[in-house]
Amino acid sequence: MKTNTSADQRLRTQPWWNAQQPSGMPVHRYQRAEPQDLLEPGTRTWLGRAPGHAPLWSSVDLRDGNQALANPMDLRRKRKMFDLLVRLGFKDIEIGYPSASEIEFEFVRHLITGRHIPDDVTVTVFTPAIPELIDRTFEAIRGTDRAVVHLCHATACLWREVVFRKTPSEVMALAQESAQRMVRLADRADGAIRFEYSPETFNVTEPQFALEIANTVAEIVEATPERPLTLNLPSTVEVHAPSVFADQIEWMSRNLDRRDGIILSVHPHNDRGTAVAAAEFALAAGADRVEGTLFGNGERTGNVCLVTLALNLFSRGVDPQLDLSDVPAVRQAVEECNQMPVPARHPYAGDLVFTAFSGTHQDAIAKGLLHLEDQAGAAEVPVAELPWDVPYLPVDPQDLGRSYEAVIRVNSQSGKGGIAHVLRTRWGIELPVALRAEFARVVQRVTDLSGTEVDLGRIWDIFRAEYCDVGGWADFAALASGDDPVEALLAEARAFGVDADVEQLVRDEGGPGSGARHVCYARLFVAHEPVWGAGLGATPDEATVRAVLSALHRSGARPANGGSVPQLAGVREGGQ
Amino acid sequence: MKTNTSADQRLRTQPWWNAQQPSGMPVHRYQRAEPQDLLEPGTRTWLGRAPGHAPLWSSVDLRDGNQALANPMDLRRKRKMFDLLVRLGFKDIEIGYPSASEIEFEFVRHLITGRHIPDDVTVTVFTPAIPELIDRTFEAIRGTDRAVVHLCHATACLWREVVFRKTPSEVMALAQESAQRMVRLADRADGAIRFEYSPETFNVTEPQFALEIANTVAEIVEATPERPLTLNLPSTVEVHAPSVFADQIEWMSRNLDRRDGIILSVHPHNDRGTAVAAAEFALAAGADRVEGTLFGNGERTGNVCLVTLALNLFSRGVDPQLDLSDVPAVRQAVEECNQMPVPARHPYAGDLVFTAFSGTHQDAIAKGLLHLEDQAGAAEVPVAELPWDVPYLPVDPQDLGRSYEAVIRVNSQSGKGGIAHVLRTRWGIELPVALRAEFARVVQRVTDLSGTEVDLGRIWDIFRAEYCDVGGWADFAALASGDDPVEALLAEARAFGVDADVEQLVRDEGGPGSGARHVCYARLFVAHEPVWGAGLGATPDEATVRAVLSALHRSGARPANGGSVPQLAGVREGGQ
Repeated sequence: MKTNTSADQRLRTQPWWNAQQPSGMPVHRYQRAEPQDLLEPGTRTWLGRAPGHAPLWSSVDLRDGNQALANPMDLRRKRKMFDLLVRLGFKDIEIGYPSASEIEFEFVRHLITGRHIPDDVTVTVFTPAIPELIDRTFEAIRGTDRAVVHLCHATACLWREVVFRKTPSEVMALAQESAQRMVRLADRADGAIRFEYSPETFNVTEPQFALEIANTVAEIVEATPERPLTLNLPSTVEVHAPSVFADQIEWMSRNLDRRDGIILSVHPHNDRGTAVAAAEFALAAGADRVEGTLFGNGERTGNVCLVTLALNLFSRGVDPQLDLSDVPAVRQAVEECNQMPVPARHPYAGDLVFTAFSGTHQDAIAKGLLHLEDQAGAAEVPVAELPWDVPYLPVDPQDLGRSYEAVIRVNSQSGKGGIAHVLRTRWGIELPVALRAEFARVVQRVTDLSGTEVDLGRIWDIFRAEYCDVGGWADFAALASGDDPVEALLAEARAFGVDADVEQLVRDEGGPGSGARHVCYARLFVAHEPVWGAGLGATPDEATVRAVLSALHRSGARPANGGSVPQLAGVREGGQ
Repeated sequence: MKTNTSADQRLRTQPWWNAQQPSGMPVHRYQRAEPQDLLEPGTRTWLGRAPGHAPLWSSVDLRDGNQALANPMDLRRKRKMFDLLVRLGFKDIEIGYPSASEIEFEFVRHLITGRHIPDDVTVTVFTPAIPELIDRTFEAIRGTDRAVVHLCHATACLWREVVFRKTPSEVMALAQESAQRMVRLADRADGAIRFEYSPETFNVTEPQFALEIANTVAEIVEATPERPLTLNLPSTVEVHAPSVFADQIEWMSRNLDRRDGIILSVHPHNDRGTAVAAAEFALAAGADRVEGTLFGNGERTGNVCLVTLALNLFSRGVDPQLDLSDVPAVRQAVEECNQMPVPARHPYAGDLVFTAFSGTHQDAIAKGLLHLEDQAGAAEVPVAELPWDVPYLPVDPQDLGRSYEAVIRVNSQSGKGGIAHVLRTRWGIELPVALRAEFARVVQRVTDLSGTEVDLGRIWDIFRAEYCDVGGWADFAALASGDDPVEALLAEARAFGVDADVEQLVRDEGGPGSGARHVCYARLFVAHEPVWGAGLGATPDEATVRAVLSALHRSGARPANGGSVPQLAGVREGGQ
């Protein structure tokens, strides 16, 4: 394996811009041998191969996932998980390890005797390579129409030598005897039994040995296209780059004796944080099937997340063959079953993954959504029919059952675009462009003071408190009459010693949430200083008059009572 | 781009083992064009290139991370984060976006005027391509010895057209004018100012345009090896496989005009869950530097996690040049700054990532740890000096400041190996192999009933309650005397009508936690049924006598009082 020499040399020379120092951590303990290049140069085919079809999905939530929970699922939670998986469209579900404990056994019996397994779903039960436990596993599936029995045992060197103290030929014998026993038991069973075989930890097993033992098991179970063996290759502990795993899978796929009789499956864990990439590359490399869990529950760092894999397919236009149109409901059910939260930044499902706080992002998203609406309007089709292309949102949250509500949230990092978007989408209030930056500063004063996020409902309160209050000018509303009520009003104001002119009036309809049919924004010059006001009203005139009054109020000018004219104070762009 | 035809054909034929159905989700909205193959066939060099050296690490926790928090950091939390980053060994830290808000500006001033930036650390400040804001950015760094000013603006088509309504040549002009302004301002500054430039979203910008604009900026700032331009290529929204990103980086690295004067940087986000793989491949493809955050905080799904990247290097024997020898402390500090938890399954740092509940895993880990201890004993070196190779634990938790305490936790999924390991490591009690399965069943009864995890402190209580209670046999202790106290005791028992023989005695020293210097396990036959007991004592004899008495008690046999011999009841292997 090459090392990245040119970059290394540049970095090792450590010019002034590279001051990094040795960490002192004990790296000498981890001089791992890299796997040898398995594929002849130039023969690798997985790279750059795009998925054309969903893989076979296999959920191991009820086995690998369950065994990694502090509080494993009880029967009720197991059943809830099973029903959820069925609803989502899983047809291949590992339902447990029935020889491990009473509850595991009981759940398998519950599903079978209660006839809770739909006709198009095949369940899998897991067994180690121990004769009594294989027997007990077949006891658990007594009476079923069909099932898969999944044999798993260690083949990797470290496990062979340290855990089981077996030679490779003893391990081979164990696989043979176990497979033969399973064939015998399956022959006696009423239903159609298929087999799954997992040499674990595949990714650190010598490839030739993994191939040999897989070929042997396939031979014993007489794997054919009609009754295939599921050969599952787990990276039980992820220790290599996903490209190394993909090469291992491509090599296996090419070299298996009964390839047509084998459903080639992978089972990636996420110890290096690269399980999703490993699964995707492995599928491109020839795997037909992937085992994983919803939101990546599972031993240690978890199994590969099937929701992420499925929605990565969806996001590139490939039908995932799982119905993930209501991700929040899926998440809620899984959180109840696992009693563990889905993290806020989990792809597609986390609370924050379709949220923007930053002004730049909010502005771009708001413009993108508006652009889409315009396009939809022009084409006279719903937005949901148009190709999705909005900055910072890789998929339409609504396609996953999530709303736009949480897309833009407001704190001190937020800007005018996002805040204007919130006013527009929540209250149907289209703020004039010239007013947006000013109002954003008003909101930022609030968030800077609190240091926290502001509840979106408060944006409207802040807006009204800032722009719609007319203060002591309320009485002047009655004076706005005649053909030009605004001019009448300003004439009265002047009579009371306040010098004010209207520079701009922007009239609009009030949106459904605003509680007003009409809205008006007024930009005045009061004592030669610009100031904005806004008004809501049942008629255009009422809204306009209120807008002018609020601008007068915001200017700081006060009508002189009893003939005395007050000082105009504190008037500047942006208000107090 | 090829599609995975052979696998597709196999899966599309849908034999009985493939019952998956269309999801009904609106995939037609996501018919994304795949990027064209950038590299000539056979010329790609990143694949299979192992890292030989840590990259330049750049933390953007205080900018990209901070702007994605519901509650952005206040000054105190910002300072805490900065100090943490310095302690860990970061030499390149983006400290904020000073033109965005008062607090951002204030924090930059605080670090500079307070001289809180160590001599070997260079800070970066972020600016958009807006003249006033560039000016304000330079104001923020007035008086500094050295800094990097980071210019970022949109170059991607969607942003150009929908957000900014600019043509490519207008965007080019914007880059030119902004870079020229920065050069002018830097020339006037006292300190040594370098530049960073981010064309965003690089990964969906036409490659030729990204290259052209990058070359233009590098030309304007006169990038040289002595004063390099940091060219940062963000996948602001991750939409492609990590291999596509690596190809983009390799293509850029090869085609840049002033490659020697450029620190090529990447900034991967995690929308597809593949940011770690994207960063690793991009570094192999020629990138020198990576921007990310601790534990992957950042917009939406977050930035790439630098802790994971660094420890992935560590786990393959490459010095990460960041001191992550106390991950729990790092995590605690980051959780305080971000006010967000690090998920339980986050690689290397999550609560559960070095934990095994399942019996199989526990057994393997316990044997692996024991094997390591044996090796260390034989070689007369501490375990911490030996190459690490333990099943299911990719690195030694202790190398990251984590203990073995949490490695094995016990619930209904747990087995004899793990439970024996807990007794051995916590109380120095080495359970005889023959007793392990029986005691595991005792514990499983407890966990099956509760349905939850059992606190490890309780394992010892359960053990003593089950095996060390001597019940009504306590009085017989006084009868155990002479040369062979056990034989004396059994003779007395027989006299009271209880037929008992000792089959096996296992004597051991009590470990420090057990509260006893000696421990003994006794296997008796009572009325021809086998039964185990255990005893703790200050002397070997005391422990032995207690073990025999507890076995008698557990057998259900009771000494006949006043000459009447009670029925022996409920005696079987494994006790009540």
